[in-house]
Amino acid sequence: MVYGIIGTGAIGGYYGAKLARAGKDVHFLLHSDYDYVCKHGLVINSCDGDFMLPSVQAYDASFKMPQCDVVIVAMKSTNQSVVPDLIRPLLKEDTLVLLIQNGIGLEPDLQQSFPNLHIAAGLAFICSGKTEPGVISHQCYGSINIGNYSCKNSQMLSSMIADFRDSGIETNELEYYEARWKKAVWNMPFNGMTVVMNAKTDELLQCKSTRQLIRRQMKEVVNAANALGVTALNDDFIEKMIDMTDSMTPYSPSMKLDFDYNRPMEVNYLYSRPIYEASKVGCDMPCLKMLEEELLFIESKRKHL
Amino acid sequence: MVYGIIGTGAIGGYYGAKLARAGKDVHFLLHSDYDYVCKHGLVINSCDGDFMLPSVQAYDASFKMPQCDVVIVAMKSTNQSVVPDLIRPLLKEDTLVLLIQNGIGLEPDLQQSFPNLHIAAGLAFICSGKTEPGVISHQCYGSINIGNYSCKNSQMLSSMIADFRDSGIETNELEYYEARWKKAVWNMPFNGMTVVMNAKTDELLQCKSTRQLIRRQMKEVVNAANALGVTALNDDFIEKMIDMTDSMTPYSPSMKLDFDYNRPMEVNYLYSRPIYEASKVGCDMPCLKMLEEELLFIESKRKHL
Repeated sequence: MVYGIIGTGAIGGYYGAKLARAGKDVHFLLHSDYDYVCKHGLVINSCDGDFMLPSVQAYDASFKMPQCDVVIVAMKSTNQSVVPDLIRPLLKEDTLVLLIQNGIGLEPDLQQSFPNLHIAAGLAFICSGKTEPGVISHQCYGSINIGNYSCKNSQMLSSMIADFRDSGIETNELEYYEARWKKAVWNMPFNGMTVVMNAKTDELLQCKSTRQLIRRQMKEVVNAANALGVTALNDDFIEKMIDMTDSMTPYSPSMKLDFDYNRPMEVNYLYSRPIYEASKVGCDMPCLKMLEEELLFIESKRKHL
Repeated sequence: MVYGIIGTGAIGGYYGAKLARAGKDVHFLLHSDYDYVCKHGLVINSCDGDFMLPSVQAYDASFKMPQCDVVIVAMKSTNQSVVPDLIRPLLKEDTLVLLIQNGIGLEPDLQQSFPNLHIAAGLAFICSGKTEPGVISHQCYGSINIGNYSCKNSQMLSSMIADFRDSGIETNELEYYEARWKKAVWNMPFNGMTVVMNAKTDELLQCKSTRQLIRRQMKEVVNAANALGVTALNDDFIEKMIDMTDSMTPYSPSMKLDFDYNRPMEVNYLYSRPIYEASKVGCDMPCLKMLEEELLFIESKRKHL
């Protein structure tokens, strides 16, 4: 199986390196780090044990990459319109594209460009970051939930999952909508609220008023998911997410890091799109809609910087 | 008619000075500015023409003040529990207490301490501020809406309104709940949103997403007021408020100034209380509830300063 990694950052760099370390044939697309990684390889500083890949199959343009059995897209969704052109050179008849990205609506959007493409969703539960060129710091967690969106080649999907597990990546298969919305229960409240309140997860949960607000925002996601047919989400899951976050090291979610480092925020796929999908089934998300609007205000002011 | 002013700041100082300039018998309670005002009087820099009162009947404690026909309470509501003891020495049998304060629920709370007191609400539409000791800067507007809460002495109320008008204060009489909720339509969205977004009114209205959020928050107030029996508020009034704010000089509402100057914010009477009153008649205010929770989070972090 040939793997292509589109976006060698905190997510793509980590999972790609795990696969490569296990002996899989992995090809990495890089941008700013290309020269550095060609010379020095990739370093993974991980809570599960540090390792490095001295020699990496690195590329500075996707048209130079080989056709792949599995293409893993692990870019931010803020520039999602470039993804079709980026992956086109890597596709062959049975290629499976796995989108390890946050949000709702990514798979249907990509399917519009490639009606017959095999697409799956990957939801990473991981705390990791790219700390310097070619260096990924993995602090904790690391499992992936896979949801099959349109892959009709079950053999390919199973082989990929087997490769993931063989590489030490805890991998679970879930129904597609459940996989996407399950992660949204945590993502939608915490990503935006840490930006708007300029705080980490622990501060938001220690204050009684934001703790109850976050619970209510989670409930909005669960209600929307239920209305969309996802039956596995309920109040118990909300309490599980609150408990889990209570026990976590104080954390800045990816949108907070994007904000802090003055990078664009993933407002569209993390907020606007799920709110729109929920509205289509008659489900209001008033507090998350307000959070989206506050984020768009912040984003509009930053553009003048 | 003898007037007592409890709180000689941007509001009490301005209206009290207007009354005194017109020859009314006005007694001012001061705190930090007492010595300065005793020596130098009060200066009003006003868009309608500057004036000064060289000699002011000033007091540093309310028990030194005479009994009054009208007591005007113009303090911030953040320390409302001290109001009964402050005004007690000024009260005689027919005293009318006018609360020129922002928020919902102030009159019933005061009535609990004085079951037979004559109380009215005063809603000031004014841009003014205390810029230095004894100096009030009045930038624009200045009218007052009066709502009779429990005054059974209609003669006293009429005399006060006549004195206000005689002093050049544009004064309108409205039904009590209409007077209070009408101002809340503007106050609830703009006070909190300028704090949470750290912006002035114009920026919030120029951004499409916060403009629609503010309209939705105003709608929550109108719906609550309607449910509480106020029929005069509707969508037209919302558009009038938006238009008026569009035409205003970029403005920081009082809560934003309190935030900027590190003073406590009036979250209770501006948010918690109206949200509670609305909930009692089955009316949700999801976006204003979220705004309240965001403000309480900000307030909880400031207390550690």
